[in-house]
Amino acid sequence: MAQVRDPSKQNAVDMAAARAQTTINVSALRDTLHNGSEKWQKQAQIVDILSKDPVFDKSTRLFATRKELYIRGQALTNRLYELKEIHKWSREDEGTALSVLDDSLPISMSNFPFEPVFRLQASPELLAKYDQLIAHKGIIGCYLQTELAHGSNVGRLETTATYVPETREFEIHSPTLTSAKWWIGALGRSATHGVVQAKLILPDGKDMGPHLFLVQLRSLDTHMPFPGITMGDIGPKALAGFAATDNGFARFDHVRIPKENMLSKFAGVSDAGTYVTPPHAKLSYGGMLYIRSGMVTTAGWTIARGATVAIRYATVRRQGEVGHDGLERQTISYPSLHVRLVPLIARSYVFIELGRALSRGFDSLARGLASGDTSQLAEMHVMTSGLKVLVTTLAIQDLETARRSMGGHGFSAFAGVGRVYAEYLPAATYEGENFVLDGQVLRAALKAFRGLFTSKTPPAAKAPSLSPTSQYLRLLLDKTLIPPELKPSSWNQPATAILLLEWRAALLVNECAQTVEAPDATLTQRVSRAVTEAFVAARVGEMIDGLPTTLKGKEAEAVRKVYLLYLLTSVEGALVDLLSFGLFRATPTGNPARSRDPTRALRLAIAGLCAELLPEAIGLTDAFGFTDWELDSALGVYDGKVYEALWERVRHEPLNQTDVTEAYEPSIKPLMMRGRRIATSPKL
Amino acid sequence: MAQVRDPSKQNAVDMAAARAQTTINVSALRDTLHNGSEKWQKQAQIVDILSKDPVFDKSTRLFATRKELYIRGQALTNRLYELKEIHKWSREDEGTALSVLDDSLPISMSNFPFEPVFRLQASPELLAKYDQLIAHKGIIGCYLQTELAHGSNVGRLETTATYVPETREFEIHSPTLTSAKWWIGALGRSATHGVVQAKLILPDGKDMGPHLFLVQLRSLDTHMPFPGITMGDIGPKALAGFAATDNGFARFDHVRIPKENMLSKFAGVSDAGTYVTPPHAKLSYGGMLYIRSGMVTTAGWTIARGATVAIRYATVRRQGEVGHDGLERQTISYPSLHVRLVPLIARSYVFIELGRALSRGFDSLARGLASGDTSQLAEMHVMTSGLKVLVTTLAIQDLETARRSMGGHGFSAFAGVGRVYAEYLPAATYEGENFVLDGQVLRAALKAFRGLFTSKTPPAAKAPSLSPTSQYLRLLLDKTLIPPELKPSSWNQPATAILLLEWRAALLVNECAQTVEAPDATLTQRVSRAVTEAFVAARVGEMIDGLPTTLKGKEAEAVRKVYLLYLLTSVEGALVDLLSFGLFRATPTGNPARSRDPTRALRLAIAGLCAELLPEAIGLTDAFGFTDWELDSALGVYDGKVYEALWERVRHEPLNQTDVTEAYEPSIKPLMMRGRRIATSPKL
Repeated sequence: MAQVRDPSKQNAVDMAAARAQTTINVSALRDTLHNGSEKWQKQAQIVDILSKDPVFDKSTRLFATRKELYIRGQALTNRLYELKEIHKWSREDEGTALSVLDDSLPISMSNFPFEPVFRLQASPELLAKYDQLIAHKGIIGCYLQTELAHGSNVGRLETTATYVPETREFEIHSPTLTSAKWWIGALGRSATHGVVQAKLILPDGKDMGPHLFLVQLRSLDTHMPFPGITMGDIGPKALAGFAATDNGFARFDHVRIPKENMLSKFAGVSDAGTYVTPPHAKLSYGGMLYIRSGMVTTAGWTIARGATVAIRYATVRRQGEVGHDGLERQTISYPSLHVRLVPLIARSYVFIELGRALSRGFDSLARGLASGDTSQLAEMHVMTSGLKVLVTTLAIQDLETARRSMGGHGFSAFAGVGRVYAEYLPAATYEGENFVLDGQVLRAALKAFRGLFTSKTPPAAKAPSLSPTSQYLRLLLDKTLIPPELKPSSWNQPATAILLLEWRAALLVNECAQTVEAPDATLTQRVSRAVTEAFVAARVGEMIDGLPTTLKGKEAEAVRKVYLLYLLTSVEGALVDLLSFGLFRATPTGNPARSRDPTRALRLAIAGLCAELLPEAIGLTDAFGFTDWELDSALGVYDGKVYEALWERVRHEPLNQTDVTEAYEPSIKPLMMRGRRIATSPKL
Repeated sequence: MAQVRDPSKQNAVDMAAARAQTTINVSALRDTLHNGSEKWQKQAQIVDILSKDPVFDKSTRLFATRKELYIRGQALTNRLYELKEIHKWSREDEGTALSVLDDSLPISMSNFPFEPVFRLQASPELLAKYDQLIAHKGIIGCYLQTELAHGSNVGRLETTATYVPETREFEIHSPTLTSAKWWIGALGRSATHGVVQAKLILPDGKDMGPHLFLVQLRSLDTHMPFPGITMGDIGPKALAGFAATDNGFARFDHVRIPKENMLSKFAGVSDAGTYVTPPHAKLSYGGMLYIRSGMVTTAGWTIARGATVAIRYATVRRQGEVGHDGLERQTISYPSLHVRLVPLIARSYVFIELGRALSRGFDSLARGLASGDTSQLAEMHVMTSGLKVLVTTLAIQDLETARRSMGGHGFSAFAGVGRVYAEYLPAATYEGENFVLDGQVLRAALKAFRGLFTSKTPPAAKAPSLSPTSQYLRLLLDKTLIPPELKPSSWNQPATAILLLEWRAALLVNECAQTVEAPDATLTQRVSRAVTEAFVAARVGEMIDGLPTTLKGKEAEAVRKVYLLYLLTSVEGALVDLLSFGLFRATPTGNPARSRDPTRALRLAIAGLCAELLPEAIGLTDAFGFTDWELDSALGVYDGKVYEALWERVRHEPLNQTDVTEAYEPSIKPLMMRGRRIATSPKL
């Protein structure tokens, strides 16, 4: 018999070889991804502290009930803030600590949206009273907007806040079952206070629409619910996601709060009950935009988790054809696999960088809003709406691509990616349901289009004033502009891909404007995607141009390819539109010339880029800087010893703690006894 | 103040109105979907018995640990077989009972694949000894193929079965960690016996490749593992799926079994140790094909669950714009929503019917195999491989479409669809990983293509002998054939869609054959999908032609539209290929004629069909016949009272059983005390 070769020993060899083959400077890239060496060092320090603290151990969390996970989450939270005090962490460090945890903690719901909404809209007096308490978790807040039967359309919320001039109070009331606040993060079991979105009813019965009110929910002494409030947890979530968060419900039965508790920075009620008009009705959207702007970066880091795990496992997993070393090939070496995985790196890199730029944009918006300036609001709204849909849609897809690329083991909870998916999935429906947001992007796009073509100023004169999200419309203003000609070499040029994606947006919006009388229901999504991808593509072009200032040599070259790959896969995803509108007018090319497929050159260019990036794949994902504790994945371990990691983990499975299962005596034994009786019965 | 109108009361009104508006005879359709009135009645009877039995109560299962769910699953199993004896259920009734349960029970793994593999390949003597015991669950079996580091490529399995002529025994051995059998359903804690796939090693050291052996795993007296076998559960699965199944691992340390335990119907070893050649090496594939052929029907019923829940909820959920009744519109009335949901009905109906036809095909194959006839095997292999990929891919997508269509509440576990998704998801990677299967379909397609064009017989003469999965190749044999011209009215004709999908398959396979020297990595998937969709489209055409024999009047007309919708959405999904190869040569049309989008007429036709089917949507989904107990969904309740159902369910949430959470004293209180101390510290 041939000598037995243990494939589990090969794992570490393969991983070490892949790491040795990387030619880029991983730490330089890592610093860039983390916004500088200083921030990276700080994060690494925080991760080190948390991962060594037994409270943050993850080894049994997959076996716990949801109730246990909630209780564990609160222990994590308490310990995290204890560590914050011990190590004198700044507010930013606190955010870092929370962001490296992969448990959905209720306290995060207090930090966003409760805290920024409160801070943006509370009166100076209310702010003075609660600001420090909120900042240091002396009270725990939540933000009560969604109701059982009402979500996106805040105008239809049923909860009322009726002003009672006699006592200078508001009476918060839930008139129906369907007006119960629902899905509110941290409300179920944790929060002591909440900002409640309710229709303001004046003494004369006039309904002034939704406004915000601070309501104390639980006693600060006993944590008992306040009288008149029926509260609780809304139950488990799909796919066991968001287990540690107590999304909750609340019904208010004529609950009185002092007049001062109205969040009245921009709108209020006089003592007598007269409405004080807000300077701009949309000021209250600021909070939601803030959350959405953070979602781009989060999407980038989320895809990065999936990419790291899947690429590491595909590097050490050998399967299928036998290579020249006599072993089965590493699965990452199959083009059908790596053309699926390398683009995940591209989307991670782009979204991390793009999100950073967007947050800077939000800071500017927030400064404006604080002084009543709403000029940037509409543009920021379209931009964040479209981006929120794009990045959540892609990140969810990418996580599932990563999970499936791992074959059977991808369905093990120990692989870790399923858990990331379950925690991330609600992003498709929270903070603006994606289909609703698409509609808003479409409306804004049509408005911009009509603004160009229906007023008296010649359209061409308006080109310089087009906003970033409408830049693509310039293509419709100059008849001499034509879509780019496509040759195989075109795909080396970012400009080709960017221009194609802008043309697609322009022609789709034009199509939409021409056919409003008989709309095609699919256009909403197609336009939103097209407009947003045109915007992102232009930003990626700027990122490529700006590369020399941040990176050098091989790193700059690798990231340039990563960004280009992002653009080409965006074009690939847009093929139906591009082909439909005659924008993809490539002659069928390639070698051999017998190909009839005009998309072949693009597809080969993508495959070529992926193959060029392949030797750097481990380096590019190592640069995300995840520790094994952060990934919590047996298939994504840094040293590549995946089979030993799986073997180690099954030991902890609660079902394996007895020789004979507890189900044997009550169920399995009687089943088999009955079976044997019937099988040997003379009737047979 | 205006009178308060309670939207929760409106739910039942809306559902009753939708049901009243249905014009089709729901019970006639239901009988057809269930293969006749008799089978439907029997199923309804079984569901009635199970749903009234407290053992099958589902009200607390979402709160249980996986260990509890495993133990519960065994209790369900024991009770189910007790009921089988009490009610004298046939084998078919037993299958019905198991299929209406939505828990993944280990016993199902004993029924498939263990039992059919054993029955197909055991010698008559071994069969006589175990057949009845297996049939009546006197022993519990499992099928041990996959290993920790080896899946699709059975040729690389490491487990050995070495023949020892001295004692007429085989020695089963796992030489390495990576040779541990892994993922084996029912192995972890339940099974007493297993069919082990192992490399047969002859006394002279010759490796004869994988063969099958029956191995007893646990004592029939004590259920203790047999000496030399290290076994256990492999741990939780992603998304909390497959919780009740004990997928397990086993390592064999020189375990001896008698020679008779080799499954030797088609291959064996003489007492002295000489190999007895099998008549056909591929006979052992029969088992896997059987499982895959059942997956088409399962996909249909799985989509049906999601469709029923989502369409019911969208019928009673009101959101967004205010309609003429002064209420917000039912969400199902939005085209952007119903063009996503109605096609789910189409895929359910098609897959249920198609799966039934396929199972008949398998019966014929099985009869052939039993007598050594393997002529149908290759065709059946391609067909089931391609179909397995197609139906699992679409069913997973459709479930997620259904879940997301429900907005925020779709992420509640009480919605039920997430659970269906988690249970169904591994279908993408088990029984043949989808990307591996795509490769097999591609190879078969290229083989058929080359068979036509490289031999000496003129290709045209071969057209009549093309197999069903290669029929589309006829289009390449006659130069006078040209792709169909597309006019808006074309989309009323099933033939147009079918022919387009066949042309797409033909041109993609041709493209692939012309470019093998420089392959495009995306072609594998595209060809597999195209070939399979051409096959399915032709079958759907036959189903439409056959409609008059099974249904009449309005029901026949409705199902014709459902089938046509399936074809049109298949064309929509194929647009990249159709446009690339010049098959979609529609002049941009529609009203207004200013549209530039050639796909507009198709998209409007799909939207038009969905709108026509909309009044029947509740009827078409009621015809699936699911009871509330089967769906276990607060949003999919038959009477439409979704908000009352959600409210009822939150009462059972374990977190809600105390006024103050158990996390308060140990964690929340210290957190807030610290916060208040810091907030009021004089330093601030």
